[in-house]
Order: sequence, then structure tokens, then C-alpha cells
Amino acid sequence: MKAEIIAVGSELLLGQISNTNARFISSQLAEIGIDVFFHTVVGDNPNRLLDSIKIAEERADLIIFTGGLGPTKDDLTKETISKHLNKKLVFDENAMIFIEDFFKRMNREMTENNKKQALVLEGCTVLENKHGMAPGMLLATKSHAYMLLPGPPKEMEPMFQFEAKPLLLKLLHNETVIMSHVIRFYGIGEAELETKVQDLLDNQTNPTLAPLASDGEVTLRLTAKSDTEKDAWQKIEALQAEILHRVGKFVYGYNNDSLASKLRDILIENELTISAAESMTAGLFQSELAAVPGMGEALVGGMITYTEDVKIKQLGVNEAIIKEFSVVSSQCAEEMAVRVKEKFNTNIGIGITGAAGPDGHGGQPAGTVWIGIAYGEMAPISYKLNLSGMRNTNRLRAVKFTIHYLLQLLREQGNARI
Amino acid sequence: MKAEIIAVGSELLLGQISNTNARFISSQLAEIGIDVFFHTVVGDNPNRLLDSIKIAEERADLIIFTGGLGPTKDDLTKETISKHLNKKLVFDENAMIFIEDFFKRMNREMTENNKKQALVLEGCTVLENKHGMAPGMLLATKSHAYMLLPGPPKEMEPMFQFEAKPLLLKLLHNETVIMSHVIRFYGIGEAELETKVQDLLDNQTNPTLAPLASDGEVTLRLTAKSDTEKDAWQKIEALQAEILHRVGKFVYGYNNDSLASKLRDILIENELTISAAESMTAGLFQSELAAVPGMGEALVGGMITYTEDVKIKQLGVNEAIIKEFSVVSSQCAEEMAVRVKEKFNTNIGIGITGAAGPDGHGGQPAGTVWIGIAYGEMAPISYKLNLSGMRNTNRLRAVKFTIHYLLQLLREQGNARI
Repeated sequence: MKAEIIAVGSELLLGQISNTNARFISSQLAEIGIDVFFHTVVGDNPNRLLDSIKIAEERADLIIFTGGLGPTKDDLTKETISKHLNKKLVFDENAMIFIEDFFKRMNREMTENNKKQALVLEGCTVLENKHGMAPGMLLATKSHAYMLLPGPPKEMEPMFQFEAKPLLLKLLHNETVIMSHVIRFYGIGEAELETKVQDLLDNQTNPTLAPLASDGEVTLRLTAKSDTEKDAWQKIEALQAEILHRVGKFVYGYNNDSLASKLRDILIENELTISAAESMTAGLFQSELAAVPGMGEALVGGMITYTEDVKIKQLGVNEAIIKEFSVVSSQCAEEMAVRVKEKFNTNIGIGITGAAGPDGHGGQPAGTVWIGIAYGEMAPISYKLNLSGMRNTNRLRAVKFTIHYLLQLLREQGNARI
Repeated sequence: MKAEIIAVGSELLLGQISNTNARFISSQLAEIGIDVFFHTVVGDNPNRLLDSIKIAEERADLIIFTGGLGPTKDDLTKETISKHLNKKLVFDENAMIFIEDFFKRMNREMTENNKKQALVLEGCTVLENKHGMAPGMLLATKSHAYMLLPGPPKEMEPMFQFEAKPLLLKLLHNETVIMSHVIRFYGIGEAELETKVQDLLDNQTNPTLAPLASDGEVTLRLTAKSDTEKDAWQKIEALQAEILHRVGKFVYGYNNDSLASKLRDILIENELTISAAESMTAGLFQSELAAVPGMGEALVGGMITYTEDVKIKQLGVNEAIIKEFSVVSSQCAEEMAVRVKEKFNTNIGIGITGAAGPDGHGGQPAGTVWIGIAYGEMAPISYKLNLSGMRNTNRLRAVKFTIHYLLQLLREQGNARI
């Protein structure tokens, strides 16, 4: 099956937004084996949209439209397709009820033009919109399948995954089970990881194996096809076992885990509390932890010690340590960790100090970071990073490495099941 | 002049990356008055690329290609155009010298296929690539102009701005000066701002006026055309004066200013120091300040007071205040601001407390935030927010509103020139 994605919206042609919908849908279609040969972007203009549809019909079996399903006069995707295919627009009752409810809940009066959003192509399969008002549609003719999806990504993405994708699998007369599983790594570069699993990458068939890097993290996506879920999962498990055998120590989690959510789970499961004293990261470590709901049971609080004076007077860092080793040193990071743990009375204390850049700091070049960890009754330990990014990349990397090292330590201490 | 942008690359059709080049080029073309009617994405396939070119020739005068100029066999943009237009590929000496130098500098041996990058279409204008090896090209025939640009944004964007745009202005026979100026707002919604300047939006000609909203901020871009820079700037100034007259109190800066960079400038200029006690934002406020280089002169440090216990024992918040008014209250926010200012001995103290969500907190529904500001000898003041976003949107909004209110206060106190 050959697909083309047509995004409708003048805001795309004015360069106000990127066509991220095409990227999302393409990656989803690649997973289920549908080839995408073209993306087209066209403005809110019925004649040019019609031309685009005619061109797409020549070169694709499946045409997926995004955008132009809203309430205003500019929104004309379904109207244009309706005319072109000679299919009436009819009211969808469920969509109408949802729209009326929406306005009641918001205590706003529904204007007449909003009813237009409940109109769907006669004979289509309606795709429910759980995050907005305009429903999606799938209409199959003898020669083509037309899928209409809303433009806003927060409406389109869940609709595609949970409504559209199963329908497309049916269209493919595909009873195959397709199962994906993501292994998440930290502390290893993409190139190094690829080298370690090169033979697996070269010989992949089923499961397929796809590496992806972003923000200093690397993931491997394993995708298996089979007749049954059980068999697909067994295929994934076999390949995963081999990967863990080779690079398991860099694995921090799976699928939707994040470094911070993984840390939260382990802290809460083991009833551990944490505090931090942050210098170069200036609160970013604790903010990243608090970004995960439910962190309140483990994260007590801590200190931002941007100046030397605050380190000494507020946190209680021994002035002699700073004098002898400077603020960017393993000694200072460990002392910060010990002091904050003591002061905030937690099981774990973290100290982060370094030179974010662009300038050096504490006699160290930009990118030097020391991470101190004080854990229970153990002597404090510290880790050095030599980062080469820009200021805020370095700050974020320092935070992620801190979580990574802490996860490794907790695992070594038998506190974490990974 | 009508333009079409054709992006060449199978990685786009696999959904590995978004077509951000089309967004960038479109916004640049909009500024100089060239209409973009279509974007097309096509894979690394010569037949399908040729089809796309033929379609584009029917509906555009200017066809801009991105990608497919590299050294590998997959890269075939210029080869396909060369055949189609019957124009030879010839070596460009400058590009060849640059490529040889590049490999010398990197101490790497140049492989034969890299020479291919120095080939350009006979008779074209060569666009220098300052950030990579493949040069760009502009070839004008009787009926069309073909512009070929490299795919990597870090090469394409500067090439477009500094090499391609002036050439396009010449193509337009346009000696006009085009000047853009951005006014940045906070604390006013896009809809409200548009209402206040609706007549200016409706009647815009020169300068043009374009609103844009993102991350809770709104900007207005003023773009003027004229024969001279002086006159273009006068046109912008006249419209800006009218805008400031109506909604000036929501303006926090211009062009590349950010809320945090603006605050840094004002703090440093007035030799003011700042500390913060953060509950729901858990360090995000201070981390956002520290994200701006040079903040060290003003930001001393502060405290993350995630639990009630830490608020009382570490920060010194009066327990009776929490008992009587709860942790999410104006009284608690003000007390936090006063205590942190005192403890860290700064000119300004900030207290942020609230319920980020998804659950409520301190007897308040999710999205309730209190921001306390203690400034010099003034009595502390506080601001309430009722936010409706997700957890981390609310946390970021709370931070931005804190900076916004602080900027307003400093301006009222005569500390800021805006």
C-alpha cells in the first residue's frame, strides 16, 4: 500500500508552524509497513486542495489529510472531498452530543458554526476525537482510502494511534500482531551502542531493531511481527536478552519510563527521601524530579547555592575545602551532598557543582562538573563529567547524569529492580 | 512570484525528522512578499523527484529544493535537475578548495565521492556554504528559477539568509529595504491582544503586523518596506507608538529579549540581588534565571521547600500561618518571600507556592498558584494565578508570571527602562 499525506493549512505555508503531523504519521505508517512516497502541504484554498487530491490519487492508494476540519469558513477539507467524491455530508450524532456537552461544560454558548464540526462524509467510518471537537473519518472507495484527521497534534496523535492505526491494519487485511518495545539507555553514546550491537543491526529481520538518540539519551526499539501476541513477545524477549547481556549496565528503563520517573518509582518503593544542593544546575535537578507527579513523597527540598558565600553560610560547607580544592572539585561536591542530606534529614543527599559555560569557573574549564552523592551511612562518592555542549545543554546533561549515577548506585545497593 | 518548496530525503518520509526547512524558508519568503502555495516532500528517488519537479513547474515560478546535495549515491537532486534541464554539471573551483581544506583541517583523507559535492549546474549562481561542504545554487531559465539548498538546517539557514535572500530580492527587481521588529508581551492572551489592536490588524499595509503566540507569550512582528532604512524605521516607530499606547503595560521586551534576559539586565544594571523559595516550581524559577549567562551577579541562591516541614524548619516560615491559611495562600507566599530574602540577605525575595496538578494541594484546586514578592523595604505583595494547563505547563507558567510581575514591579519602582 502506498500512502501520501496532505496537510491543509495556510499557517504551514506562511512558516508559522512545522508540519510535525506528517513526521508523526509517517513514523507510525513505517511501523506497520505502509510506504509513504510523498508529503504535500497546501493552503486553505479549495481549488488548490482539489488539485492536490487529484495528483495524490495518481500516485497513492491511501491519502491521509490533516487539518481543515474546524468550525470556520477556512476549514474546507471535508467539503472539498465531499464535492470531489460526490458524497454527502451528514450529521454524526455522537459528535454533535460531544460538541454540545463541551460548550455546556465550559459554560459557553455554542455558536451555529460549531455544528459544522459534527458533519461527516456519508458512509465513512467515524474516528472519535477524545481531545477536541472535530471527529476523524475513513472513507474507502473502490480505488482509494481517504483518511481525514484533525490538525492539532494533541487531537491527531491519540486519534491516529488508537482509532486510525487499527483500522489501517484491517485495511491491509492484516491479522498480524505487531508489537513494539523500547529499551532506554543512558551514559552510552549512540555510536558506541551501535558498535556493540552492530551484528544485530545488520542481521535484523524479525524483530527489527532501530536506534534513536535525543537529548543525550539513546533508545533501541524492537518491533516484532507474529500471528500471536505471545509469540511476538517471545521474539522480543530473546533479542532483548542478548542486548542486555552486552550493554545492560547502561539500561535505565523501558517504553515510557524517563530517568526521573524511574528514580521516583525506586525511591518510593524503597521509602527513600532525597534532597539536593545545586550550584551550576541552580534547581534544575530538583525541578526535573518535581516534573514527575507523585515525587512529593520522596523529594523533600533542598538548596540552590549559587555563590560561595551561600555554600558556606547557608549550607554549611567547610570554607577550608573550598579554599584548598575550589568550588568545582570532588571534595566540594561531596561536602555539599553530605551537608544537604544532614540539614534536610534525608536518606540521600546530592551535590552538583561545575562550570556550565561559556566561561570556566573555580579554576576549571567550561563543561567540568562534579556530582556528589551521599547515601545512607556510606562514605560520599563523586563523579566527574567533562561536557562539551552549550551552557544549557551542559546543565541538562549534568542533571541526567546525576539521575543515571544515582540509579546505578541504588541498583548496586540492591534497592532497584531493573 | 509563486514559490514551491521541494524537500528531498527518504528520512522525511520515514518520519525520522520533521521538515523544519520548509517552515524556515516559508517564513523568510513571507517576509519579502513571495507567496508559497505548496510544500512537497519526496524521497531519494530520481523518477519521483522528476515527477515532483514537473508538477511544481506547472504551479510555481520559483522552485526551492532542500537536501540531496551530499556526497553519497542517494544524493541526486542536482543530477536529476541537470538531466531534466539539460544543463551540465561542472566543477566549482571555490567549492573544491573549501572541501580539500576541510579534510586537511580534520586530518582525514578525502574520499573520491566528496569531490561530487563541488559539482554545480552550468550557468548557475553559486551560493557559498560557510557551515558545510555542498554549495547552493540558483539557476534561472526563461520560465522558472530553481534554487538548490543543502538539507542540514545549520548549513541551509545561514545560506538562505545571507546568500539566497539577497538574490531573491534582486530577482524581484526589488531594491526595497525590508525591516522587521518584534514587540514581546506577557500577561495578555493572544485573543485579548488581537482585540485591542484589531483595527491595526485589519488595516495593515506598511508596516505589516503579525501576531504569534507560543508558551504563554505573545509577540507582534512589525515589518516595514521602504527605499531607505531610516524611513522603514520611522514607519515602524509610528505604529509601535500606537501599540505601546494601547497595550504597553504588557510589553516586556523587543526582538531577542527573553523574560529572564530582561530581568537579568535590570537586576545587574540596578545592582540588585535576588533569592527565591520555591515549592511547586521546585527550583524551576531559579534554574530559568541561571539559564541566562551572567545571572551569577544577581542570583545568590535560594531554597526548594517541597514539604511543609522544610518550609517551617529550614526556611523559618511561621507554622501558625500555614495552620491558619494553608501552604497555598497569599500569606504563605509572602512569608516565604520575606524569609528567603532575609536568610539569603538579598534585595529581592520570591516565594512560589501552589498546586501544579494533577491533584489539588493545600485545600486549593490544581492550577492555583500564589507568587509572593518581597522587595527592599516595601511590604511584601502577592499575586494569584488560576492556571488550567497540565502539571508542567502550570509550573512553567508560574515561573514566567513570576518574572512578569517582578518586571512590572521593578518598572513601577523606576528601576527599569522599558
